[in-house]
Amino acid sequence: MSIIRTLTLGAVKASKILAVLEESIKNQVLLAMALALREEKQYILTANEQDLTQATQNGLSSSMIDRLTLNDERIEAMASGIEVIAGLADPVGAERVVSERPNGLQIRKMRVPLGVVCMIFEARPNVTADAGALCFKSGNAVILRGGKEALISSLAIAKVLQDVLEKFDLPKELITVVPDPSRDLMFELMQQRDSIDVIIPRGGEGLINFVTDNSKIPVIQHFKGVCHLYIDKEADLKVAMDLLVNGKTHRTGVCNATEGLLVDKSIAAEFLPKVAVKLKEKQVKVNASADASQYFSDATVIAVEDFGQEYLDLEIAIRIVDGVDEAMAHIDRFGSHHTEVICTKNELTARRFQRSVDASVVMVNASSRFSDGSELGLGAEIGIATTKLHAYGPMGLESLTTEKYLVMGDGQIRA
Amino acid sequence: MSIIRTLTLGAVKASKILAVLEESIKNQVLLAMALALREEKQYILTANEQDLTQATQNGLSSSMIDRLTLNDERIEAMASGIEVIAGLADPVGAERVVSERPNGLQIRKMRVPLGVVCMIFEARPNVTADAGALCFKSGNAVILRGGKEALISSLAIAKVLQDVLEKFDLPKELITVVPDPSRDLMFELMQQRDSIDVIIPRGGEGLINFVTDNSKIPVIQHFKGVCHLYIDKEADLKVAMDLLVNGKTHRTGVCNATEGLLVDKSIAAEFLPKVAVKLKEKQVKVNASADASQYFSDATVIAVEDFGQEYLDLEIAIRIVDGVDEAMAHIDRFGSHHTEVICTKNELTARRFQRSVDASVVMVNASSRFSDGSELGLGAEIGIATTKLHAYGPMGLESLTTEKYLVMGDGQIRA
Repeated sequence: MSIIRTLTLGAVKASKILAVLEESIKNQVLLAMALALREEKQYILTANEQDLTQATQNGLSSSMIDRLTLNDERIEAMASGIEVIAGLADPVGAERVVSERPNGLQIRKMRVPLGVVCMIFEARPNVTADAGALCFKSGNAVILRGGKEALISSLAIAKVLQDVLEKFDLPKELITVVPDPSRDLMFELMQQRDSIDVIIPRGGEGLINFVTDNSKIPVIQHFKGVCHLYIDKEADLKVAMDLLVNGKTHRTGVCNATEGLLVDKSIAAEFLPKVAVKLKEKQVKVNASADASQYFSDATVIAVEDFGQEYLDLEIAIRIVDGVDEAMAHIDRFGSHHTEVICTKNELTARRFQRSVDASVVMVNASSRFSDGSELGLGAEIGIATTKLHAYGPMGLESLTTEKYLVMGDGQIRA
Repeated sequence: MSIIRTLTLGAVKASKILAVLEESIKNQVLLAMALALREEKQYILTANEQDLTQATQNGLSSSMIDRLTLNDERIEAMASGIEVIAGLADPVGAERVVSERPNGLQIRKMRVPLGVVCMIFEARPNVTADAGALCFKSGNAVILRGGKEALISSLAIAKVLQDVLEKFDLPKELITVVPDPSRDLMFELMQQRDSIDVIIPRGGEGLINFVTDNSKIPVIQHFKGVCHLYIDKEADLKVAMDLLVNGKTHRTGVCNATEGLLVDKSIAAEFLPKVAVKLKEKQVKVNASADASQYFSDATVIAVEDFGQEYLDLEIAIRIVDGVDEAMAHIDRFGSHHTEVICTKNELTARRFQRSVDASVVMVNASSRFSDGSELGLGAEIGIATTKLHAYGPMGLESLTTEKYLVMGDGQIRA
């Protein structure tokens, strides 16, 4: 049997034991994992040193090396992240009533784990602990296929978690790191549709497309975040400025940063000069439609078809629009189904925007930066889906489960 | 632009209009569609005649010709089916509270349509009306790619529905039949992942596998139904016999028929002789493990590895097991994640079976034949999923939707 086949069938077998494990035991295991990460810190850091030496020799970029680097603080963050997950409600086993039929049948639904989750990610070794804990709590076995740059670190973290599993007489196959990061094995992994229930890739658009194109298993896709902030004619302009500055400059290299500003034409002359001052102060490069550019001393004028960029930097696109309808048309054309924000005091306009805009998160008077599992109250996040099947938007524990039907009868037969 | 591209982009555009249409208008349209099917019955029957003539010339099997045939009764069934769908609750727009954050943000979720649904089916022309109405009610545009045998009938039914759409000033692209049933175009259709949100194939395992292997779009899979009935030692044997006879003989060519009987060893000597009499009377062919076969005069003895067949006929496999654990192990090995039934008076045993068995529908003391969208109270059914992503089990209107996040703030920014 191939290494991939051994590994995925082992995960299936292990997942069946975990699927029916009591929540209290799962939480004990998670707390022990957090403790073990702290106790085995030196072991993990030593492994990480090897990855870093390799990375330096291979001339990796400084941002790549930053993502790869573990230190006391980051290991503590992994450990406390697992403690947070231990404290979250377990979705598995939750029931709801669907219907009671005229013949007396009681129909309910019960949440159950998906089974085996496969994460394909790039250089962040902490994904091993985060995804390992989220999948464990939600009753799923996980197969982690990380980039080769982080392999030694990932294997070390997994080893620490697996030792805890074995102490609790649980199969170590519940958390597996693919030990060989070759592309051939990744390809083989993506064909295992009888044993893997979902693939969640975490990384750039290239990775997501590669996985989607080659996987025979359903893929949860997270494409780019081109998030807009629309300032309505009935906006509180003080709030509008706060949302703009926070959305654009709080952190720039993230998918929930604000990349586009749409301003209603009736308030443009009042609002945009203030925006010009503020964005200059914050050193934000401005790209603007011709009519909007006149309010800026050094804006680059861009054509309509050049909107829709994900800058991931101190850079923004600004356009004047004729009311909420034109704003929604712009978002429909250039948005990425991630997060869209309206700033308005008019509740009817806000409702219309929320109902109509097709994005996984639609906000009223709040910064796009809140589009994140923790900030939305999910506790933690395994990914953000920008396509609609199974999950749409930030995915927490519940997204790692599905529902089966329970039918209770007393001898009913079909006539 | 290719025919497929024109068609899918037209569906995307149309879906945006439908996504925000009021429920009351959708229901008016559906009732008008039901009326139109009745009024245009002769037009549809004439088209169906052409398909039938072709089918006879091509020497299609009688069961294929039966599936293809429309008549007064079947057209009335389509029309009244649409009326039922008009009467179902609209899932679109339904909201639920997710959390209220310490910073005052209100987090909710709202149900929204998936967008564009693609059905790939074989020879049943009525799928055009059923799926068309279900997708319309749930706010989705639908692209229907049926087998070439039913093409003229499907196009005629779609024409009747499209004429109603146009009377209500709605785009006819909401319900589209692919006019060219070539395999090349089907292949091209399955690559349109920027415009189609989900593919639901309806047909045999060959079709499902072909679509899964070639689609770049998520596929809802419905594989075979190998449903078991386990008779516990604490079963009411009168109920057990009712469930067996109904599950096996009520209708045989369906995925929710009972294909395997598992009997606890402590009641085998009492129950199986009665089963032998009853199944002989019903002319059911028995395949049995060696120990079970002694109770039957003409059972075929089969080896363990020969269990797990989907007979779709008056034929069954019978095995004696050592309690609920061995029954669950058998189901784990041979089940198809469709429907599994336990017959017992012991509530704890029933709960354990329901919690542990991995099937989309797990029943206690009820016939497997109830595993159907209408019978479970969903009103109607677009398919049955035997894989877990997005939907698991019978899929009603809600399965054709997803949820987006709504965030309400009053100026919150992230610290």
